[in-house]
Order: sequence, then structure tokens, then C-alpha cells
Amino acid sequence: MIRLHHCVSARSFRPLWLLEELGQPYELVMHSFPPRMRDEAFLEINPLGTVPAFFDGEVAMTESAAICQYLASRRPEAGLEVAASEPAYGDYLNFLHFGEATLTFPQTLVLRYGHFEPPERRQPQVVEDYARWCLSRLRTLAPRLEREPFLCAGRFTAADVSVGYALLLASHIGLEERFKPAVADYWARLQQREAFQCALAAEREAALAQGVSPEPAMAVGGAA
Amino acid sequence: MIRLHHCVSARSFRPLWLLEELGQPYELVMHSFPPRMRDEAFLEINPLGTVPAFFDGEVAMTESAAICQYLASRRPEAGLEVAASEPAYGDYLNFLHFGEATLTFPQTLVLRYGHFEPPERRQPQVVEDYARWCLSRLRTLAPRLEREPFLCAGRFTAADVSVGYALLLASHIGLEERFKPAVADYWARLQQREAFQCALAAEREAALAQGVSPEPAMAVGGAA
Repeated sequence: MIRLHHCVSARSFRPLWLLEELGQPYELVMHSFPPRMRDEAFLEINPLGTVPAFFDGEVAMTESAAICQYLASRRPEAGLEVAASEPAYGDYLNFLHFGEATLTFPQTLVLRYGHFEPPERRQPQVVEDYARWCLSRLRTLAPRLEREPFLCAGRFTAADVSVGYALLLASHIGLEERFKPAVADYWARLQQREAFQCALAAEREAALAQGVSPEPAMAVGGAA
Repeated sequence: MIRLHHCVSARSFRPLWLLEELGQPYELVMHSFPPRMRDEAFLEINPLGTVPAFFDGEVAMTESAAICQYLASRRPEAGLEVAASEPAYGDYLNFLHFGEATLTFPQTLVLRYGHFEPPERRQPQVVEDYARWCLSRLRTLAPRLEREPFLCAGRFTAADVSVGYALLLASHIGLEERFKPAVADYWARLQQREAFQCALAAEREAALAQGVSPEPAMAVGGAA
């Protein structure tokens, strides 16, 4: 049985969403955010202190976009992976990485220095620098999304989960109103997916059952 | 013919190194760093304004670790990819992402706010926060590297190129002396590879031939 350690709305939402897309059974272990601060024992589960921490038999993984690619490749018949033989394979790999390295990491700076740090350590300049960074990178998706419903291969894939999570986080930190129309429409399409809704319901239900707040710690709309 | 847009010692060193590991022919187009500031025309090649910009026929990619995975998969007989059927597949994907999202992005903050920004915009606190972040994440590799010569699958793979570039950058920004012994030994092993040496020679030669400084803009040892 797959076990996923998760905090509400954290990067671990990516593998949770993908598991729902696949209809794959899993065990969801909820933590308060940030887990390394709230629970020292978590460092024995994942020495990085981060979520996701993902276990599938002998396989242990911590990088959310990598887990999506891993899960998609385990069920090729579901079409969530783009095979190396497909023309869109390069796009697929690129967007899997782009969603995290280019779109999500900058937002963690907006959150850290605009919200999570104590007031004397906040850095409004860094918040503004990286909100602008994220939006300018996001803007480059608009021409493609004006032509295509999803990022690559003409269908929904794990790459959309990678980028889609970056849009979820952007909506939490108040960047959504600055999305280009094609990006806003894409984000609306993603939210309408049944598996996305099921993932939201699953994290809420698991949080309540496990005594963890179901509210996302990173929902700070307007921080940027 | 593969075309790679590159700045000396930038993330585009990853695909350059991998091309050398594969013995694959390529055209190397050099730019001064950062390319979006130095050359407005570059935005027509890559609207993100970043390197790498990588072209292989119809395939266009911008994420350095994704390009490594793409190239490795094009020549499976070279053994630089870990196939989905191998037990180390999860580790392979994880380290491809880890090298960039977890180890490299934090270093770009150290560089930006410790070196590239004008003095009045520098942020010593951010430099220290993310130097510490990077080193603490890097430390988690030590137990594995005490047992194994490379990150996964018992052999050198594209995942080592992803993490190896993070170590190259760390050496440029003055973090190398804080590496754990097993990480320092691993970094020494990587630098001894013929393909690594060839990649260093190729970027230097191309820079000189194309009128670009062969010195890495990010070599600022002691910034952190």
C-alpha cells in the first residue's frame, strides 16, 4: 500500500491529486505545516523534514513532481504519462520540472518572507521580487494555453498536475487575480476535474480524522 | 543537430556535461550571464530569458534536469538513464529533481542577494538563510554516499549530473569547504570524469571563440 505524508495544500498535494486521477488506493498521513517544526519525529520518516514523503514498498521519494512521474509511469494505460516514443515527451519532462523549479520555489519565498517569518525577519523586497518572477514565468504559458487545453500531448498528464499545483499555491498567496486570461481559464479547467475535487475532499477528511487543521497554512491571499 | 544555448557554469552546464557523457554532437551557443539582461534578442530564442535553451529538431526545452533525462532516454544503451523497470527508478527521478529544486534554487538566492544585486538591494539574511538551507539538504546525501559511489542504481546516471551541477555551483559560491567528507569525495569523483573535463574545455573554447568571457559570473567564493 502506498503511504503519502501530506500537509494541507503543500507540495504533497501533487502526488495526492495524481493518486486520485489514477484511482489508486493509498494511505494519507497528515501533518501540521511546516512538519519539521511541528513534529521532531517526522525527521525519522524524512530527514529533509519536508512533505511529500512517499513510500511504495522499497521506494522512498521526497520530490513531488518526481513522484507524479513515477506514479504515471506505473500505470501507462491511464495516459497520464507521455511515453519517450511520443513527440511531446520533451515538453512533458520540461513542464514536470517547470512546475516546481520555475513556478513553485519562487512562491515559497513570497510565503516565507511575507508570512511565515516573524515580523523582524520579513523581507518585502524579496516578496515583491519573487511574486514578479513567478508571474513573469507564468505568463510564458499563455500562448500555449490559448491554443491547447492542457500543457502537452493534447491531453491531461502528470505535467498538468505539476504546474496545476503551482497555480493552487498562487491562488492561496493572492497572485490569482494577476493571471493572464488563458492561464486563469486553464486553472478553472483543472479545478473542475473530479480527481482534483476528490483530492481536496480527501485531505480535508484525513485532516479532521487525524486532528490536524484542515485550513491551508499557506492561504494568505494578498500577501503579495 | 542539437543546439544548446549556454552561459559558462550556469545550469546549462548540466545538458552540456550529459552531451559529453554520451559523445553526442552538438552546437554550443554562448551568452554572457545573465542572458536576459545582456541580450534582448535572446528573449526571441527563449521567452523565459534563461539558459539552458535546448533545441533538438522540433523539441524545445528550458529545464536543465529535464533535458538530462530526455537525452539519457534517447540513448538507453549508454546506461545514463534508469529504466522504469529497474528498482532504482524512483531514486533516479527523485535525484533528478532534487538536484535542481532542492539544491540549486536556494543557491541562486545566495548569488542574487549576496553578489548580483546592487549593494542597496543585497540581503545578507537571505544569503545566510539559503546557504544554510542548501548545506542542510546536501548533508542528507552523506549516508548514501558513504555506501555507494553514485546516487542510485550502482552506476553514474543523469541524476549524478543533476546533483553534480549543484556541487559545481556550491564550489563557486564558497560552500565547498562545508561539504561533509562523503559529499566532498563524491564531488572529487565527479570532477575526475573525462566528460566533465571535456565539458569544461568545450565551454571555455566556445566562449573564447564567440567573444564571451570564459570566467564564470557566479564564481564568487566566500559570498556565503
